[in-house]
Parts: sequence; structure tokens; C-alpha cells
Amino acid sequence: MYKAPVDEILFTLKHVAGLGEDLANGIFGDLDDDLVDAIVGEAGRFATDEVAPLADIGDRQGSTLTDGTVRSPDGWRDLYHAWAAGGWNSLTAPEEFGGQALPHMLHIAAMELWNAGSMAFALAPMLTMGAVDALEKHGSDALKSVFLARMISGEWTGTMNLTEPHAGSDLGVLKTRAERRDDGTYRIFGQKIFITWGEHDLTDNIVHLVLARLAGAPEGTRGISLFLVPKFLVNDDGSLGARNDLFCHSIEHKLGIHASPTCTMVYGDGRFGDEKGAVGYLVGEENKGLNCMFTMMNNARLAVGTQGVAIAEAATQHALNYARERTQGKAPGWKGAGMSPIIEHPDIARTLLTMKAVTQGARAITFACARAVDRAHVAEGDAARYWQERSSLLTPIAKSFGTDVGVDVASMGIQVHGGMGFIEETGAARYLRDARIAPIYEGTNGIQAIDLVTRKLPLSDGGHVRGFIAELKAVAEEVGASNLAGFGETGRRLEDALADLEEATEWLLARLAEGKTAEALAGATAYQRLFGLTLTGVYLARGGLADAGDGGRDARIALCRFAAENLISETATLKDRIVNGAASLAAARIALA
Amino acid sequence: MYKAPVDEILFTLKHVAGLGEDLANGIFGDLDDDLVDAIVGEAGRFATDEVAPLADIGDRQGSTLTDGTVRSPDGWRDLYHAWAAGGWNSLTAPEEFGGQALPHMLHIAAMELWNAGSMAFALAPMLTMGAVDALEKHGSDALKSVFLARMISGEWTGTMNLTEPHAGSDLGVLKTRAERRDDGTYRIFGQKIFITWGEHDLTDNIVHLVLARLAGAPEGTRGISLFLVPKFLVNDDGSLGARNDLFCHSIEHKLGIHASPTCTMVYGDGRFGDEKGAVGYLVGEENKGLNCMFTMMNNARLAVGTQGVAIAEAATQHALNYARERTQGKAPGWKGAGMSPIIEHPDIARTLLTMKAVTQGARAITFACARAVDRAHVAEGDAARYWQERSSLLTPIAKSFGTDVGVDVASMGIQVHGGMGFIEETGAARYLRDARIAPIYEGTNGIQAIDLVTRKLPLSDGGHVRGFIAELKAVAEEVGASNLAGFGETGRRLEDALADLEEATEWLLARLAEGKTAEALAGATAYQRLFGLTLTGVYLARGGLADAGDGGRDARIALCRFAAENLISETATLKDRIVNGAASLAAARIALA
Repeated sequence: MYKAPVDEILFTLKHVAGLGEDLANGIFGDLDDDLVDAIVGEAGRFATDEVAPLADIGDRQGSTLTDGTVRSPDGWRDLYHAWAAGGWNSLTAPEEFGGQALPHMLHIAAMELWNAGSMAFALAPMLTMGAVDALEKHGSDALKSVFLARMISGEWTGTMNLTEPHAGSDLGVLKTRAERRDDGTYRIFGQKIFITWGEHDLTDNIVHLVLARLAGAPEGTRGISLFLVPKFLVNDDGSLGARNDLFCHSIEHKLGIHASPTCTMVYGDGRFGDEKGAVGYLVGEENKGLNCMFTMMNNARLAVGTQGVAIAEAATQHALNYARERTQGKAPGWKGAGMSPIIEHPDIARTLLTMKAVTQGARAITFACARAVDRAHVAEGDAARYWQERSSLLTPIAKSFGTDVGVDVASMGIQVHGGMGFIEETGAARYLRDARIAPIYEGTNGIQAIDLVTRKLPLSDGGHVRGFIAELKAVAEEVGASNLAGFGETGRRLEDALADLEEATEWLLARLAEGKTAEALAGATAYQRLFGLTLTGVYLARGGLADAGDGGRDARIALCRFAAENLISETATLKDRIVNGAASLAAARIALA
Repeated sequence: MYKAPVDEILFTLKHVAGLGEDLANGIFGDLDDDLVDAIVGEAGRFATDEVAPLADIGDRQGSTLTDGTVRSPDGWRDLYHAWAAGGWNSLTAPEEFGGQALPHMLHIAAMELWNAGSMAFALAPMLTMGAVDALEKHGSDALKSVFLARMISGEWTGTMNLTEPHAGSDLGVLKTRAERRDDGTYRIFGQKIFITWGEHDLTDNIVHLVLARLAGAPEGTRGISLFLVPKFLVNDDGSLGARNDLFCHSIEHKLGIHASPTCTMVYGDGRFGDEKGAVGYLVGEENKGLNCMFTMMNNARLAVGTQGVAIAEAATQHALNYARERTQGKAPGWKGAGMSPIIEHPDIARTLLTMKAVTQGARAITFACARAVDRAHVAEGDAARYWQERSSLLTPIAKSFGTDVGVDVASMGIQVHGGMGFIEETGAARYLRDARIAPIYEGTNGIQAIDLVTRKLPLSDGGHVRGFIAELKAVAEEVGASNLAGFGETGRRLEDALADLEEATEWLLARLAEGKTAEALAGATAYQRLFGLTLTGVYLARGGLADAGDGGRDARIALCRFAAENLISETATLKDRIVNGAASLAAARIALA
């Protein structure tokens, strides 16, 4: 059973991602160490004791649809209410509407914990928080006054309605339409698919944010508007009014996250209300809907990366526990009586160490990204731009590397279990089933790579990424200068990886400058992984360099060395693929004909 | 829907694995090109038209257990009987018992086809053929006369009963016991788990091969005997007699291969018959059971590698079809109207080409291994030893590389489908669920790596593997000498990979010679992949070098070049991990404490 790694998370927040420095510098006002410890500790307790025990029943029962009503698994409504009552939904929300205005770093740390407990459960608040973000930044005061506080408290949940059958990644072609009414409201008509927690029984109302197109709007993404469309309309006194003209038509039968209902939502077909059309309220300006949605999407991407970390952590714990108890054969050098625990076999130890190293690396990346979000939020001028660019650069890496790690580690976890890993009751298989969606939604990892290469590398004319690499090199030098024998070849290995990263970066920037986009994109996914792997090495090293006085330093240094000497040299292969692979890729299209 | 790649399979058999040369040299008697084409073509038709259409219902319904009776999915009993009536079960079996005595290469080619149609279905005959193998080689004439012909015809199926809850990989500790009776029969008592198709309604009888221990037998693997234990006893006239004292206690709830019942079998608890104990007949000699089982296991390992290839092929076809039809966004350089098919996006093209290249590489490895089995069968003296060693060396690589490719490609296939990939009805997810068992059963891939490094590399004092590498180098030189521009850097890339393979091989042999087993085993899995990747490159090159006059050569050369310039350089990383990774792995055990 999952046990929240509270100490590891606190260590990573403070000593790797930089929260310790920020607290010391008073960046977050009177937020102090003790409060951070208390929040993460209590979130960990809730995830361990309350969320995780309901994950299996959620997977087995799933959420089910009957006559337009979605029933959540046994115990989940109570779980959700206990969770909301704990104030967990309001962590980062503005105080004006009842939030606690805490740093995004704490939100991401807590998100990891909920997702490790149950990814299907955590999706409900994840979507709500995204909707809160968009509404807070772009909604009118009137909309905020009705909806925001009740979404922040968790009384109502929120959703994101983007996808249509023919419009997934390419939102420019969506067809859901909106009609303006004289009273300033709109009527929405259309069908949306893949709407996470689009309908459920956890709360009395659900607030849908829906992308739609007004008649006569410009073609493509410049003609999309964002609307708030509640399941139940809200009376002036705040009580729930009439049912709005929308409903859940069907839910998907999915590989994983069974308890999270993935809904096809139908707006404006006349099932409810006197007049056809779901009542919607404009968020932001007409035709500027995509801008509003991007606010949600960036934070959601980081949160999805966190889901990958969460699954990886849970799967690693599960496999580690099994490998310590299960005995089979005799490992080389085994002196004990009878069979050895399988963890003694070098191949199993390697697998578990790989799981630990990439999980910890991916976690550090998500926290570093969250820190950049926080710093951008409180900084001004050049510093604000610097941190804004840092969070922009790290977001696709956090999303893609975190979610790839989630899948890879979950699959390794099954393998460690041997035959038991394939049996559903063991629990290892669910991690893979749940994890598999994360590299897909919120923009596939291929799309993250396009974003990273074509939009993030060029920030400040390449100045930002170059500056970042220089910062990373300083860590590698620090390892060399530390004279800590436990690091082994880490310093040199990191320098090699950073040289690969630098060469690949310059090659890509040069291709972009020449307008050779196809060549640059041919290596985009390899570049994304190269960046993630290098950051894994550097962040593990930063952890090893930090002397937290907690007795864990030797193990951290040893894990860092393992990563440096066993995993990181993949960067050479990736760099080679980036700078030498495009021509043969183009030539090989004949083999796909 | 899956369409059997008959031409690709025939090309690989003849021009890559060497069947063409063998036919020309009359190695397999009067077997000729036309007959090979007819067999593979007809197997392909059956897999495409009969097996594949029942795969989904098999997955959805699964096999179900009620009161000890297992019900197979709708239509599966008829499917099985049509398949057996087609003579497919008897392909390689001896003619004396009604078999066709065809080469193992054709068996493996056909196995790929059945498994691509439905892996859950193909498991039933796969186990039967393993039992036929063991019985043919080790069974008494009396046993053969009663059971063999009816297993070869497919009238009865066979099973392998090895695993017990505490004895998976380590068979030495199994507890199922056998008692000798005065009439020469035995009585079997115990519980076996993970018995594939251990109980079902496809046939009227099921022939279990069961490992058990006689009282007073030596400890460990030297005290294990093999018994044939039929579900129904057989009367002297060949009719079915009394129900034997065994039953299926439960079936597992698994991640995939739902239609294949994975049974817990209970022997000798007195449910059936007058006297407690399941009647068993000794196969081979007492306490030599493991030798008999190894006959089955080696062929089964190759067949499991083939399952990985099969899933990879089916998943690749599925993804390719989707990527050609689904439009989204505009790929760089796209000149068409509206959105481009996603196959035009470089990242999707790279993914599909990777899927194709590793699938084809893994297929060639399984066929090359099957050819070695065939040649060993017909050769004598040094040649027999050479081919025996070749099949021994290739078996763990075929098993592990094939099954890893199956999982990787199935996962990539989901990714290509985007959100649709996560929806079960799409069909892409099933491939991953089914594929995930293959790296685990018949010896985990970690165990294959131990076998490869500690038992296969030392064959002929390392002479066999060194000779094999020399043969592979000749292919790389041939590429260089061919002056075919389409190969690009293939020749040099293959030489680099082969140098990595050679260095890693010598390093491992040196560690073994020094008794440093733990160091060697630390890199065993990396070595196994290094070997598989290098073989992929070489076999793709061999395919490109062959001029089959079928118009496919340019595409084969282009795919080979893609693999050489994009995938194969991973060998450098793997070699580094093997020769430099063991020390940090050992040091990092502190991080697992």
C-alpha cells in the first residue's frame, strides 16, 4: 500500500527545487518551514489513509452512467467531501474568494500525493483548479461572485470542454457554436468528447468551461470564445435554479482511471429547459477564448506531469515492497539460508534503482517548474520575464518526461512482480493502465516536443535556454569541486550530458533560424527526453550536494552516481538522433507508403 | 483490422533467415518454394479471416469459471475446431503420429500469425505443441500410442504445470508430490498456479504435464519428475474413462489475454475417483523431469518471443491505418487542403518507422533462431553442434527482444492514436494489455539475460558467440561494398554497433572467467538488448541487400538506414552501461535499503 513520501518531497522542494532558499529570502511572505512541513505532512497523511484505500474499489467499480446520471464508486462521495472539507481545494486560490494563496509548489506537491493515492480521484480537483485559474484571471466580477468561492471551496467542481471528435489537438476546427442573446448571455450548441468528470454525483453542481464559436467569428483559433456553462443555473440568491440544457450522453470504456468518468457532453439539444440551447456566460472577450484556455492548459500540463511522478512513486513503492519479500533463486554472493529476496538479484536491483532515480528526477523537474511559476507570480520586470520563461521552458519537459516516466516505471513495476504483476488483484497492473493516458492528454508528448522546440527554445532568441544550461553546468562543476568520493564519475558524466544538450540545442536553434522546421521537428521528441534526462542527473546531483543533516545524504549521492553512470549516457544516443537522424527519417517515408 | 503480412514473412524467412538457401540446397527434402508459399499464405488467410475477428469478443467476454467448468468465449470452440481441422496443430509434429514434419521455421511463422490474430487463442495450441514435443522426445511408446496422435491432431490439448505459489523461476523448491503405485502408475497431489488453458471446453480431454517430487527424491532440481496427468483417464479401447482426480479451482483476473484461462489446478484432493490422488504416468525417468521440461521450455521461449513480434505487427498495422486517416493540424511542408493526416507529422512518422523497424528486426531474430533449430535437427557432428549452439544463443535474445518489442510497440501504438488509444473499443489498448505478460512468462526477460550471459556466452569457450559476431561483421562489410546510396551511413553504423557488441561480449566473458558473476549480471539485461538491437540492424541490412525482384527493395533499404542512423546507436549507451555500470549499481544498494 502506498505511503506518502513526505520527507522525500519536502527535501526535494526545499533543497533541490529552491523552496528553502525562497523561504529564507521571504519570497512568500510569512510562509515558513513549519507551515510547509505541516501542509505536506497532513496532505501525505490524507493521501495515505483516506485516498489510497479507495483506489482499488474505484478501479473495479468504475463510475457508471444510468439515464444521464453518473454514479461514482462506493465511498467516493464521502471521500471527496472529506477532502474538500480539509481545505485542499483552496491551497493556491486567492484569499479574496476563500483560498489560501499558497505557492504553486505546494499545490504540485499535494497534487502528487492525491494522484499517487488515486489518479482517477485527483482528476476531479485537478480540473476544478484549472477552471478556477481561468475564471480568476479572465472572468468578470459578476461571474466570479457567483461561482468562484464555491469552486474554490470544492462545493462545485469544474471541467474543461475542448475536444470534439474531429478536433483534438487542433482546436481551430471545432464546431460547437454559441449564439449571443440580448440579455448578455449566450446559448451553446454542440457535442464535446473526453470531458473528465463531466458528470458525477460528488457535488450538487458542475461548472463547465466550454470552447465554442460565435456565428461570423474568424476562422481557426482566432474565432474561439470561452463560456462558463453550469449544470444548474444559479438564482440571484445563490440557490440552485433550473437544470441547464446539457447532459452526459455516454461515458467511455477506458484502459484505466476507471473511476474518473470520461464524458461525451451534449449542449443545447433541448432535453432541459423551455428554449433549446445551454445557457452560457462569456469568460474574457469574444474570440479570445483560446488565450483564456491557455492559462488553464499550462498549469494543467504541469499537473499532468505530476500525475506521472505520482504513479511512478506508487509503482516503485509497490515493487520495492514485493522485491524485499519475494524470495526466488540465489543471487550471486547470497550467503543467507534458502532462496534470496529477489531484490538481491542484480537485474532486479538495477530495475528498482532506475525506477527510483527517474521518479526522483521527474519529481524535481515538476517542482522546479512549479517554483518558476511561483517566482514569476511574485517577481517584476526582468526577473518576472526570466521566471516566466523558465516555467514556459520547463512545462513541456515536466509534462512529457514526468508522464513517460510514469508509464515506464509502472511497466517496470509489473516486471519486478513477475507473474503476479499480470494479476489485477496485485495492484501493479492498475498503475500501468492509469499511467498510460498521461502522455496523451493535455497535449500528447509529441505536441509538447513541438512546443518545446518551436516555441520555448526561441525564447529571448535562445538566450533563456542557454542561460539555463549555464546554470546547470555550474552544478556539474560543483560536483567535481565537492571531492565527495561517493559521486564517482558523476561530475564528468554530467558535463558530457550537458555538452550533448548544448550541442543539440544549438543545432535545433540553427535549423529553426534557417526555416528548416521539419528537420528540427524530426528530433523534437528525442530532444525533450535528452533535456529531461540531463535535468534528472543535475537535480539528483543538487540533492546529493545538499547536506540536510537527515542521514540520507549517502544514499542520495549513491543514487545520483547510479543515474550518472548507468542512465545519463543515453544523452549521447539522443543527441546523435537529433543531429544525424532527420535525413534518414525523411528518406524512410517510402517504408510507410 | 489485422491483415497477415504474408509477403513480409515469406521474404524474411527466405532472404533474411536463410530458408531460401536451405530450400535451394535441399536441406528439407522435397519441401519447395511453392509449398512454403501455400502454407504461409493459407495460415495468413486463416489468421486474418477466422482468428482475428474473434479476438475482441474473446477479450470482452474472457473465459469464465463456473463450478469447476471453464466456458470459452462465444465462437471460440468452433474456431478451435476449424483451426485443428485445418491441420495447423500438426505442422512440425512427426509423421508417424499424423504430423507433417515441416521445418520449425514454418511453425514459428504460423505462430506469429495465430498470435497476431489473437494471442489468447494461440496460447492453447502453443502449450499443446510444447507438450507434444516433450512427450515425443521423452515419453514411452505406450504413452505415445495413447496420447500423441490425439494431441497432434488437436483433438486434445496439452498444458505445462510448473509453477507453484512459492516456486516460480526457482523450480527446485516445488512441493507437488508423486507417489509410486505397484501398477507402474503414480498418484499426484498438490496445487499448481498460472496454468494456461488448464481447463476449458474447447476439447473433450486435456493432457497435463506436471512436475512433481517423489518421496525421498534428492533436494532441489535433481529431484523433480515429470508426469502426464490426463483430465479424463483413457480406456484400453481409446474411449474416455473416469474423470481423474484434478480440477480447476479458480482462474485469474488478468491485465490481458482474457480469453486464455489462467488456472489454479488442484491435483489429488479427492474430488473425483474412489481413491485420493490424480493418476499420473511418468514421462522420461524419475528425477529427470526438469530435463524433459527444458525441451518444452526452449521451444516455448522462442514461441513467446514470437508472440511479441505478433503483437508488434498487429499494433503497427492498427496505428498505421489510424495515422493515415486521422487528420489534425498542419505538418511542416504540408501542401494539401485543410489538416494533414497525422502520419505527415515528423514525430508520428518517426514513431511508426521505429515500430516497423524493431518489429521486423525482432521477427528476423525469431526466424533465425527457428532456422538454427531446424538445421540442428537435420545436421550431424560439428554442424549439429554449431546449429545447436546458435539456437541456444538466440533463444533468450528472441524471447526477450521480441517480447520487449511487443510491449514497446503496443505502447507506441496507443500513443499514435492519441485520446482514442485509451478507449478500449479502439482496440489499441488490448495489444498492450495482452503483450505485457510476454516479457514475464516462460522465464522473465531478466532470467533470459542471466541465461544468455552465464550459459550461452560460454558455449565453446566463447567461440560460438565470437564466430557469430564475425558472421555479422561480414554483412556490415557487404553493405559498405554494395555501393547502394540508399543505405546512407548504414555500413559504418553497423560496424560501430558490432564493435560495441564485441567489446561488451569480451568484457562479460572476462568477468565470468574471473568468477565475477555479480558484475557480469549487473549488465546482463543491457547486453541482451544490445545484442537484439545489433541483430535488428544486421538483419534489416541483409533484407536490404537481397534483391527479391518484388519492388520492395528501396523501402527495405530506407527502413534499414532509418534504423541504423536513428535507433542502433543506442548500443553505445548499452555497452557503456555494461562495462562501466556495475560499480555504481553495487554502491547504490544503500538507496534501496
